[in-house]
Amino acid sequence: MVPRRAGSGIPLHVLAERCGAELSGDGSIVIDAVATIDDAGPGAIVFLANPRYRARLAGTRASAAIVSPADAAATPLPKLISANPYATYAQVATELHPAAPAEAGIHASVSIAASAKVAASAMVAAHATIGERTQIGARAQIHAGCVVGDDCSIGDDVVLHPNVVVYARTRIGARGVIHAGAVLGADGFGMAEHEGQWIKVPQVGGLAIGDDVEIGANTTIDRGAIGDTRIGNDVKLDNQIQIGHNCVIGPHSAIAGCVGIAGSTRIGRNCKIGGAAMIAGHLEIADNTVISAATAVFESIPTAGVYTGMFPALPHREWRHVASILRQLRSILQRLRELEGGRGSKGE
Amino acid sequence: MVPRRAGSGIPLHVLAERCGAELSGDGSIVIDAVATIDDAGPGAIVFLANPRYRARLAGTRASAAIVSPADAAATPLPKLISANPYATYAQVATELHPAAPAEAGIHASVSIAASAKVAASAMVAAHATIGERTQIGARAQIHAGCVVGDDCSIGDDVVLHPNVVVYARTRIGARGVIHAGAVLGADGFGMAEHEGQWIKVPQVGGLAIGDDVEIGANTTIDRGAIGDTRIGNDVKLDNQIQIGHNCVIGPHSAIAGCVGIAGSTRIGRNCKIGGAAMIAGHLEIADNTVISAATAVFESIPTAGVYTGMFPALPHREWRHVASILRQLRSILQRLRELEGGRGSKGE
Amino acid sequence: MVPRRAGSGIPLHVLAERCGAELSGDGSIVIDAVATIDDAGPGAIVFLANPRYRARLAGTRASAAIVSPADAAATPLPKLISANPYATYAQVATELHPAAPAEAGIHASVSIAASAKVAASAMVAAHATIGERTQIGARAQIHAGCVVGDDCSIGDDVVLHPNVVVYARTRIGARGVIHAGAVLGADGFGMAEHEGQWIKVPQVGGLAIGDDVEIGANTTIDRGAIGDTRIGNDVKLDNQIQIGHNCVIGPHSAIAGCVGIAGSTRIGRNCKIGGAAMIAGHLEIADNTVISAATAVFESIPTAGVYTGMFPALPHREWRHVASILRQLRSILQRLRELEGGRGSKGE
Repeated sequence: MVPRRAGSGIPLHVLAERCGAELSGDGSIVIDAVATIDDAGPGAIVFLANPRYRARLAGTRASAAIVSPADAAATPLPKLISANPYATYAQVATELHPAAPAEAGIHASVSIAASAKVAASAMVAAHATIGERTQIGARAQIHAGCVVGDDCSIGDDVVLHPNVVVYARTRIGARGVIHAGAVLGADGFGMAEHEGQWIKVPQVGGLAIGDDVEIGANTTIDRGAIGDTRIGNDVKLDNQIQIGHNCVIGPHSAIAGCVGIAGSTRIGRNCKIGGAAMIAGHLEIADNTVISAATAVFESIPTAGVYTGMFPALPHREWRHVASILRQLRSILQRLRELEGGRGSKGE
Repeated sequence: MVPRRAGSGIPLHVLAERCGAELSGDGSIVIDAVATIDDAGPGAIVFLANPRYRARLAGTRASAAIVSPADAAATPLPKLISANPYATYAQVATELHPAAPAEAGIHASVSIAASAKVAASAMVAAHATIGERTQIGARAQIHAGCVVGDDCSIGDDVVLHPNVVVYARTRIGARGVIHAGAVLGADGFGMAEHEGQWIKVPQVGGLAIGDDVEIGANTTIDRGAIGDTRIGNDVKLDNQIQIGHNCVIGPHSAIAGCVGIAGSTRIGRNCKIGGAAMIAGHLEIADNTVISAATAVFESIPTAGVYTGMFPALPHREWRHVASILRQLRSILQRLRELEGGRGSKGE
Repeated sequence: MVPRRAGSGIPLHVLAERCGAELSGDGSIVIDAVATIDDAGPGAIVFLANPRYRARLAGTRASAAIVSPADAAATPLPKLISANPYATYAQVATELHPAAPAEAGIHASVSIAASAKVAASAMVAAHATIGERTQIGARAQIHAGCVVGDDCSIGDDVVLHPNVVVYARTRIGARGVIHAGAVLGADGFGMAEHEGQWIKVPQVGGLAIGDDVEIGANTTIDRGAIGDTRIGNDVKLDNQIQIGHNCVIGPHSAIAGCVGIAGSTRIGRNCKIGGAAMIAGHLEIADNTVISAATAVFESIPTAGVYTGMFPALPHREWRHVASILRQLRSILQRLRELEGGRGSKGE
């Protein structure tokens, strides 16, 4: 498909200025779209961040490129030179494909409590529901079907995509982007066993989300059991993530899709957690830690580093053998010790 | 944030009576909130269930505590003594932070089929949709944006949080709590391969959910292919769980977030399944079984116990070595046998 | 519960004709429901696809059966004989339990943009929202609470179950079935790190879904970063799946619940991916590949086959031992080599 294009395009020298990149070549050329190196056509700008694609750059039909100083010679095209081509690409793409502006105003079909305060510049779309005493900030967009409970605070410029549910007493800082179907502030999973029945533990804490947080589609973050669950500034969460009650996610951490984090775990700042990783409850993960995808973490990580733990995928027959021998490891170790015999134990 | 507090608080002796706990110390002190040991202030009550926090209890600024008989000496505060402090805490918290009452009545914006029967004491909030012949029980709360299909039965005192979808012919027993975005009774994943195409297998069974069941946000439970999918009484399901068609979950079992259970598997009663565990289809899991988080179960478990299976998270370099040596296990075993040589095989 | 039944039933010989199966026995018997072998009663038809259930067939109270030629002697009941009994069952069940027809028409409560084009034969249910320039095909069903963005194309006979969200510029081919809570076309997880902050990378691609695609409840598929995310014809996706930006899923592939596929990965045609499998980004998976449930895939799979990788579930104590010895594998290998000593290395 043809992606959205700016009506008239933007000259390359203007993009260079706006994005703080160095211009090389004809700055008057008009750029009207971003594209991949392979699919680009005239008017498009491409970027080279991964050296693997360097050779392909020669064959692109794009009109301009974004490259690092080291790759400046890789193309004769007019170009933007940047120490961080991917970040410059992000800026250029934002210039060329600005988000469609939302019209301020409240749709006739919404249900807004009398005591709610919605900024005049905010948008509240069809069939949205907003609870008592809730505040919606300037230029916020509450898309169709969203339900925001009582006593919430939704910051300036926040976007709630359709059908997001925000439970009572949740706060979202400025510029948050919450994708469709996310559920913020539901009850944590707390119950006490008593005479063979579960008694629900009221979840009386809240959920406090910082500024510049993006939350993916159908992600769920529970409110606190007593104190708050807290999501730091500039945290980025992908789709289908589950974050339990009273977790704390440090600023600028990024978490990929399908991750589960059980209750009361604290993730440091600048952490990166790969998709489908699973982190048990009541742990502390150090700042700057990287957890690989599909890795289960059951102990605190006090020292930053890259942590991994998954069974590698093997041809099924081979896996069967390996899995079967796994159960013999104690026997293998024991037999090895016996063979080592008189040489003395080498420790466990 | 300050959690919700009861307007005027409740004297400690009243809490003791209501919760069946033994009072020790000044029962006239008025309690108006639960709190953590570290964050508590005057008027708050804290609980000690985990001995790890025993030492901290001395420093709390709370006005009262809930402790076991063994810990009664751990604090000079007025206190409730209970054999199960966490259960007593749950009761106290329920007294102090009662759920906000819902006003009975049907919002003007709802779409309710003519043949649906909604109890006069039930609440149906904005933009909800209720299908033909569906019954909504006394004091039930159908929050904004919920869609309940035809021929459903929603029990007394059930709460459907916003944007829950209940497919046709689903039954939910009394006192169920269904969190936002849950989807109950969608088609199971059934199709037959025929000449290189998939033919959809109609999912003609239903979904029967017992009494006192709590279901987390964005959890999905499929209807049966022929017979029903069944969720027993007092089952507690966390967020983002997937339960396939024709599963049976026994009474009082609790399942943590992100668990997937494939079709036709039967989980016994009183089972506990940790987060992100994965259970294959057509299995039988014995009553009282505990399955650890992140564990994949591919065979029936006929004997109760604790079952675990996950690759421990390691520093990435170490993991690489271990994963690489895994593939050599057959060779290692073979070489060990060769070394053992004339001593005779020690079995596999 | 009693599943839906056709009002008057269908004679067995008519079912034989409609489904292309061979009739054996009394074709005049009227069939009005499908059932399991164990639960069937008079009027029901059962099927035998799994030889494990062959013995039970003798005891069924059903009125007819669907069997393979090899199993034709397993029951004296009137029967349909088919080389693919499960596919014939699917056809028979479709005849006996046809989907409830949707009444064409647009509910008074919907919000439809002036420039949207909705086929006269389509249904748009309560509280749905449809964006500018979006097209809704003939006989399509847009159920309650769905939100379809601007510039979308929803094919003929597509069913969007309640509360589905379709972001702008998404296309869904003919006969798609999208279950409740699915989110199609949300932004991919793209951001560039710049001076300690994340810059959002605009996701300017789209999402193109082929014909005959079924998508499970609460599944999420992201739009492309530049080009499109593409889901091929006849792809079947279960619940709670996450598919990242710019993935390509080949025709006729089937993916079970809770699977995560990271961005830019290409799954071939006719692939089968088990529940809770996790596939990293930028990989290529060959046509006809089978990936077992709970398996993490971190490298491309150029050759079709069955691939598996999960730590088997063990009694917890045994798992602790095995997991602990895992970390000693390097030492074990080293010690084995030392024992082998002068015999020469046997390679790593």
